[in-house]
Amino acid sequence: MLLGNAGLVLCVEYYNEDGVSIMWVTTGLDDPDKPTILLWLSNPKSKPRPRRAFVIARLDKQSHKIIVDLATHAILSDKVYNGHGYPLLTYEEQLGTMELPQTYKPFIESIERRGLNLSEVVCSTFTIGWFGELKSKRVLKVLCFYVDGPMNLYVRPVEGITLVVDIDEMKIVEYYDMFIVPVPKAEETEYKESKLESPFGPRLNGATLVNLDGLGFKIHGHTVRGFISEMFVPYMDPSEEWYYKSYFDSGEYGFGLFAVSLKHFADCPANAVFLDAYFSTNDGTPAKLSNAFFIFENHAGNIMWHHTESSIPRKVFTEVRPEVSLVVRMVATVGNYDYIIDWEFKPSGSIKLGVGISGVLEMKGVTYTHIDQIKKNVHGTLLLENTISVYHDHFLTYYLDLDVDGKANSFVKNNLEAIKKQAELVAVNPNKKTNVGNNVGYRLIPGSVAHPLMSYNDYLQIRGAFTNNHVWVTPYNKSEKWAGGLYVDQSHGDDTLAIWTLRNRKIENKDMVLWYTIGFHHVPSQEDFPVMPTFGVGFELRPTSFFDSNPVLKTRPPYIVHWPNCTN
Amino acid sequence: MLLGNAGLVLCVEYYNEDGVSIMWVTTGLDDPDKPTILLWLSNPKSKPRPRRAFVIARLDKQSHKIIVDLATHAILSDKVYNGHGYPLLTYEEQLGTMELPQTYKPFIESIERRGLNLSEVVCSTFTIGWFGELKSKRVLKVLCFYVDGPMNLYVRPVEGITLVVDIDEMKIVEYYDMFIVPVPKAEETEYKESKLESPFGPRLNGATLVNLDGLGFKIHGHTVRGFISEMFVPYMDPSEEWYYKSYFDSGEYGFGLFAVSLKHFADCPANAVFLDAYFSTNDGTPAKLSNAFFIFENHAGNIMWHHTESSIPRKVFTEVRPEVSLVVRMVATVGNYDYIIDWEFKPSGSIKLGVGISGVLEMKGVTYTHIDQIKKNVHGTLLLENTISVYHDHFLTYYLDLDVDGKANSFVKNNLEAIKKQAELVAVNPNKKTNVGNNVGYRLIPGSVAHPLMSYNDYLQIRGAFTNNHVWVTPYNKSEKWAGGLYVDQSHGDDTLAIWTLRNRKIENKDMVLWYTIGFHHVPSQEDFPVMPTFGVGFELRPTSFFDSNPVLKTRPPYIVHWPNCTN
Repeated sequence: MLLGNAGLVLCVEYYNEDGVSIMWVTTGLDDPDKPTILLWLSNPKSKPRPRRAFVIARLDKQSHKIIVDLATHAILSDKVYNGHGYPLLTYEEQLGTMELPQTYKPFIESIERRGLNLSEVVCSTFTIGWFGELKSKRVLKVLCFYVDGPMNLYVRPVEGITLVVDIDEMKIVEYYDMFIVPVPKAEETEYKESKLESPFGPRLNGATLVNLDGLGFKIHGHTVRGFISEMFVPYMDPSEEWYYKSYFDSGEYGFGLFAVSLKHFADCPANAVFLDAYFSTNDGTPAKLSNAFFIFENHAGNIMWHHTESSIPRKVFTEVRPEVSLVVRMVATVGNYDYIIDWEFKPSGSIKLGVGISGVLEMKGVTYTHIDQIKKNVHGTLLLENTISVYHDHFLTYYLDLDVDGKANSFVKNNLEAIKKQAELVAVNPNKKTNVGNNVGYRLIPGSVAHPLMSYNDYLQIRGAFTNNHVWVTPYNKSEKWAGGLYVDQSHGDDTLAIWTLRNRKIENKDMVLWYTIGFHHVPSQEDFPVMPTFGVGFELRPTSFFDSNPVLKTRPPYIVHWPNCTN
Repeated sequence: MLLGNAGLVLCVEYYNEDGVSIMWVTTGLDDPDKPTILLWLSNPKSKPRPRRAFVIARLDKQSHKIIVDLATHAILSDKVYNGHGYPLLTYEEQLGTMELPQTYKPFIESIERRGLNLSEVVCSTFTIGWFGELKSKRVLKVLCFYVDGPMNLYVRPVEGITLVVDIDEMKIVEYYDMFIVPVPKAEETEYKESKLESPFGPRLNGATLVNLDGLGFKIHGHTVRGFISEMFVPYMDPSEEWYYKSYFDSGEYGFGLFAVSLKHFADCPANAVFLDAYFSTNDGTPAKLSNAFFIFENHAGNIMWHHTESSIPRKVFTEVRPEVSLVVRMVATVGNYDYIIDWEFKPSGSIKLGVGISGVLEMKGVTYTHIDQIKKNVHGTLLLENTISVYHDHFLTYYLDLDVDGKANSFVKNNLEAIKKQAELVAVNPNKKTNVGNNVGYRLIPGSVAHPLMSYNDYLQIRGAFTNNHVWVTPYNKSEKWAGGLYVDQSHGDDTLAIWTLRNRKIENKDMVLWYTIGFHHVPSQEDFPVMPTFGVGFELRPTSFFDSNPVLKTRPPYIVHWPNCTN
């Protein structure tokens, strides 16, 4: 679950005519049609046919979209994509690109001119976006950082140098060395525990959960599914070095591909159970990521429901049930930011979708050491001498293929109207009623909403137009999965959710998809540096006359587990 | 902490000239002036003088506001209040009022006419509000319920009967029996565990926290402070029996006075520590409420910060710190609703203020048994046969006397502006700077905001005008504490936050108060019945360049406590 452009493992050999193996960019599941899936769900013995994989591959500077039959290993279709944009970047491509400057003479000279040690320079890749150019190549910009000190890539940018790399050719095609500003000293920015020096902060108290009943859930296979359709991070600095920085973390990089192995007792409580994940690499072979997901029962001390009856004289009583919810978590680190993705399933039927944003800021080196020196708009916060963090937004767009008690659903805007009007949004099944006749439904409870700050005509926002609204509803369409399109790198915004909805298709009483965007304007503060305390955002899907009455009324409370006598 | 109109205990004998003891309505702390408090905080040995109590008492149908010196037992001032509105209702007054109908002949006949058993009828009190009347008396409306069955007061309203009681005289002054509709059968609405019958839901798994290091916090006395200034619950049914229903839970009833004793292992996790509270009763004597607050370390499995450094070749590592936060909780049950009030203090300096809404709905008995029978607007949701729950809002207004690194603060609206404009709100101290010169500050991170639906000219909204904005900032003024005013029962809205701010006082570089209102439009769903799964809302105060850098960077992670060998 939650894996972005990733999924099952494909073992098909595939070469071009010259015997050159092709670069696998995306290997994923080609979902069967909905009726086939539903038939299979109703009768698990009827294995869905055909089982197919979906592959995007690069060959001879062209993007191929390939469908493979997994039973027969046959290629069912192979189409060259001629539209705008490129498929996501593979890890191997980025690693190759990062290493090019180390042997590039002009770059070596630039580093010497700055008095830096080449072996301590690490470069990183940045997508170039699209700003109206008529022609494009599959290129990346490369910026570099100094790691002679804290193991924190982004805090010590080597400003002024930009390389452009053609990744199909894997060679440097443009080089600029425009100005020199000091590399921030970045003192006290180490965050690796083994390198931290005293004085330390307090040690947090440890605790473990003792679950004498055993766990309250079981895992069979890998059947939980769902994903972040796109994640758009526009930065708002118009300078030459920063204007193009806007990341589509799913479409350009493959959000789920950057899932990281989780650490027991740190990323999760003591009672967590882990699942591994598998990815396909550049050449199509599978790679295993251990502990990619963890699943745990949340005994956080929340209250499922509570009532004290104090209005009936001489019969005062309190009834209360503690909540034990199920959390499924993954963490994806896409470059500098770490996204903690939680799906919390409550016994009441509520589903809370949370994102914790942590990690490190992307920095800009400047000459300023105090804000009193700053006379013009620097589009960011001065965090430490020579170090600015640029304002930006985070938009996470969820794809939620809702089936509320069946496929045919409607989306209802309940207008709450006395004098003023406000709306609440409910997905209902107009064909299914509760005992007293209400349509069964699930309500969307939005979190704090941030809207895009850019004009709809801004090139960045044209490509990120799926964030123009924080809620969209579309009829289910197998090909509409990635809000920013399938070929996002350098895309022109002509294959986004905002374009698909222009068709204004009927969504009443249909199989529909709810797209919800979590937004967060990030005005960095000094606390976010050198590593950012988790900032939590989210939303909730809550049953709304889906059940005839409180579904946890008769859920029995846990037996009380008293403080046991323990030896460690 | 968190206690509304309640506080310390006063033991002063006070009689009128006839020797009749007076009714104590409110006994609270008369805060010393801010300079006195600050002096005392900087030097705890300098005991603040004078230590004073603030009393509102009723005597001869008049409201007295009395200041008492606790050292000398002297009355420092005693003023009769001649403005609009009355002080809050005491528990004893409400209990007395509820019992009056049982011996009132017309009421007994009404109950017989409905074929009901008088001994199973329980009445409850309802404030009458203000709808433009020029004169008023201190009266309550009384509505009754049938408890021959589930112990759930509000599910079985005896519709059509309204009594009006003069509570100074403690007698019935008006009586209406207008129509008869069936008392809802309310089948399957029992929620008391001992009375629930099979089939049961699953039993949740138990767990206990084993904290081998002991607890990570200590409690000295009762020094945590803060409160909900007002809580406004307007219902939106214009019918004769419901139009007046709008509750000011603090000013009319005394929100904190309805704090309930918390249950270990149900209202809180195993590692909670409890504190008691004391209230003054009608005659001024103290009453103890056991386990009114609990304080616990939250080991919920949250992540304090996380970063995986994957951009430096051959040096990939993950650093992560689990979060252990401190939660202070109380639950207040004001009639049918139970409010779980959480203050969560994070090691990073963030303060999360959460409210969980649970309890039972207020019901309206109707003739309908299915929504197909409903042809006109019923202003509510049909939950079960003969049972409607009326639409309403919940507004909780927090009073936050912020002192960001000192008293003199400013409130900054950071306009985020590219083409479109959005604001973020930060309380800063313009006199204190970080190492690089940013003003130290705390940011307000609002939760989902619901605005009032009523016209500003509606009588209800005139009284609840402090909800017209969800954020207000005022200069600190000792007398401005309760957003709805001090005499809220039947108030005319002439002593609310919305009136105080008309003076448009300077708030820049001042000791200021932030008022934040959490709002929630409650369109009841069948799941909310017969008892409502907790609905969570809240907001966050997050340090914003208050610290020079991440304050939890060097907080050391807990020692790992492995699953111990335990005997129960």
